[in-house]
Amino acid sequence: MSQFESWSYGYPPVTNYYVPAQPLSYSNPWGNVPYYPGYSAQDGHHRATQPLTFVLIHGSWGDASYWDQVAADLRKEGHTVYTPEYAGHGADTNKNVTHADITRSVVNYIVSRNLKNMILVGHSFGGSVIQKAAEQIPDRIKRLVFMNAYVLNDGESIADEVPPAAAQAFSQLRAASKDDTIMLPYPLFRETFVNLADATLASQLYNKVKPEPAKPFYEKLDLKKFYTLPTPRSYLYLTTDGVLPQGEGFGWHPHMSDRLGVFRLIKTPGDHFSTVKTEPARIAEKLYEAARD
Amino acid sequence: MSQFESWSYGYPPVTNYYVPAQPLSYSNPWGNVPYYPGYSAQDGHHRATQPLTFVLIHGSWGDASYWDQVAADLRKEGHTVYTPEYAGHGADTNKNVTHADITRSVVNYIVSRNLKNMILVGHSFGGSVIQKAAEQIPDRIKRLVFMNAYVLNDGESIADEVPPAAAQAFSQLRAASKDDTIMLPYPLFRETFVNLADATLASQLYNKVKPEPAKPFYEKLDLKKFYTLPTPRSYLYLTTDGVLPQGEGFGWHPHMSDRLGVFRLIKTPGDHFSTVKTEPARIAEKLYEAARD
Amino acid sequence: MSQFESWSYGYPPVTNYYVPAQPLSYSNPWGNVPYYPGYSAQDGHHRATQPLTFVLIHGSWGDASYWDQVAADLRKEGHTVYTPEYAGHGADTNKNVTHADITRSVVNYIVSRNLKNMILVGHSFGGSVIQKAAEQIPDRIKRLVFMNAYVLNDGESIADEVPPAAAQAFSQLRAASKDDTIMLPYPLFRETFVNLADATLASQLYNKVKPEPAKPFYEKLDLKKFYTLPTPRSYLYLTTDGVLPQGEGFGWHPHMSDRLGVFRLIKTPGDHFSTVKTEPARIAEKLYEAARD
Repeated sequence: MSQFESWSYGYPPVTNYYVPAQPLSYSNPWGNVPYYPGYSAQDGHHRATQPLTFVLIHGSWGDASYWDQVAADLRKEGHTVYTPEYAGHGADTNKNVTHADITRSVVNYIVSRNLKNMILVGHSFGGSVIQKAAEQIPDRIKRLVFMNAYVLNDGESIADEVPPAAAQAFSQLRAASKDDTIMLPYPLFRETFVNLADATLASQLYNKVKPEPAKPFYEKLDLKKFYTLPTPRSYLYLTTDGVLPQGEGFGWHPHMSDRLGVFRLIKTPGDHFSTVKTEPARIAEKLYEAARD
Repeated sequence: MSQFESWSYGYPPVTNYYVPAQPLSYSNPWGNVPYYPGYSAQDGHHRATQPLTFVLIHGSWGDASYWDQVAADLRKEGHTVYTPEYAGHGADTNKNVTHADITRSVVNYIVSRNLKNMILVGHSFGGSVIQKAAEQIPDRIKRLVFMNAYVLNDGESIADEVPPAAAQAFSQLRAASKDDTIMLPYPLFRETFVNLADATLASQLYNKVKPEPAKPFYEKLDLKKFYTLPTPRSYLYLTTDGVLPQGEGFGWHPHMSDRLGVFRLIKTPGDHFSTVKTEPARIAEKLYEAARD
Repeated sequence: MSQFESWSYGYPPVTNYYVPAQPLSYSNPWGNVPYYPGYSAQDGHHRATQPLTFVLIHGSWGDASYWDQVAADLRKEGHTVYTPEYAGHGADTNKNVTHADITRSVVNYIVSRNLKNMILVGHSFGGSVIQKAAEQIPDRIKRLVFMNAYVLNDGESIADEVPPAAAQAFSQLRAASKDDTIMLPYPLFRETFVNLADATLASQLYNKVKPEPAKPFYEKLDLKKFYTLPTPRSYLYLTTDGVLPQGEGFGWHPHMSDRLGVFRLIKTPGDHFSTVKTEPARIAEKLYEAARD
């Protein structure tokens, strides 16, 4: 295990953990069924929803529209949802951006709106963005949720977490670009980003892909402060994601998720880019399960 | 692989395996659909249930009530179910117990009732208990079923199978106790034991948690005899369990399950402590699939 | 990672990837819901089926009847399906065959029928067969689909990919045979090949098992050409397969699937031998998702 795989990270020292709001009791036995009102024994789902504020951070080769359908379903459930677009993406045609520029976009978006008590969600590259944002505005964050997202070790870059052959491919694609970007070849996108989609959806989604600024992939990030933060964190793992190898020293879960220390694990079937379009209600539900108290 | 990951363990030497009750035949082709009466092509579920005797052994920080809803559903299906509570747990307020005391509780429970041909199920810490019980009363056991349960190597302790940071946390909690126990901090329980539960259920379940006797976590167990037993065994893996890391040298499956040699694998979504409360019928069904001939 | 776990294998050099048939466009945004006609937002399933030609290659201890129910469901969906039986299996009682004989059976079957633009599917041992067949008739293959199938490294044998204890067991069974075959003992079959089946189905399937020619398990295969082929490939992983350990350096996925380089991952619950009988429609659907453009 890396130095970051620790059950103590993300919480105060284990000798003085906080206790639940209601006083602990060892003497209130509960019966068989139903053992508390309002609970569905059918599916384990919540009945009453706790309204939350979500800030959803998209990943590379994407923009705010990645979240359109999921955000709509979260709002239907009574949540407040923001989907900021960051430097070098979407409306911003300037590709000459750094990881710090991207983080600044997100932090400014949150601070300018004075958002507080947020669930800050990062997808893919967005994981490294919420790691850095959490260092800058920890008091505004109720919980971090990583959804098939990078959790970088201190001193790592995104490029350090992709297999050697993929890193080599990205370097070639970067070198072939005129503006220091990396454009995803269609076969790589179709087979590994949208493996669960049919060809029509795959093409529609690919047609929205824009060349990704390369620099932020190769910047080593200082994450020392992140690994001292007590912010609660969850990892939502879509289990059919083919973007990274699913074992042997790489991948979203458990390879990167374990770096979060004590975290809440939620799993559901899904790929990297298409399941948010084909089954947004289920993804919204799992984001809520990852986010609730 | 460890010396215990062997396909021959748990069965007689491979040169004289037993054959099914009905004589083998290489000449009785079966048609397409339905290829045998009474089989549901819909879901692969049994139609006729084989009545079994289950003895369900709970884990740490739990008591016999862990199984209440699952046992009720197994009984509905016609099975006989026992849920013994062992030394240092539930009604027993004496926390000064050893692993041998706990095993003795279970063995005495079984022998005093003269239970035979049982399916002996262990959850979590209970896995190490059924390993030791199997050494003492092998002739009473039809099959062992491990449900997100420890399968210790010979000479190991439970503490040897938790990540270093978690082991350190447990040591601190033990040191902080007045009676050599380990009390689970709420955040650790909420995020890793009941990650699929909502906050209300999480608190209700936490309110039942009592400090766990520490000594049995640190006792190295002699399991040489266990690894010579021919008892059939199954591993039921609830796939969303966050109590142990899910890869990289730790965890329930495949890390510990593989030590069983030839075993029957059953998987279903679920966490460590709440899915038996929210979806007991499904867990009961999977226990049956793990237990049937 | 092995030298074969490369994102560039299976595609031309990354600097000249092909692009989708329709011209790329970065300017056609799509709305929220429905974002394209004919797409089901309910389940992500295709509405319109693309008719394909499937050639399904069974594994060891099996014959063409392994695919009977799945082939019937694929045909119902409008696909053309072939299920060749190869040397030393099914109708062929001569067990003295080599891996090359088996591959020749499959290649001759395909060439004699002049099959083209095929989806060539291999199950288990059949994975090594489609690897070799792909080297001989690459121009006839539209896509390779591995379903819980061996993907051997260049120079490996099947025996190299089974755990030491299993390899030892197979050697003993081989030595005990009169005709250089390996017969599966019932307990091994019941617990690891048909773990999800009930006892009746397990016995019915076992009664069809014939001793497997041993030689092809131990032949080292030259697969240098396979690892230069640009043929698209998918891996369909049935997640409850107990035939190989599910981690720690062994197993179907990700251990062997990662050798395919850029591949399409599809997952669904299932075991090695019984799910194709109990839930053929679901397996047929997942094979289509693995095979479509």
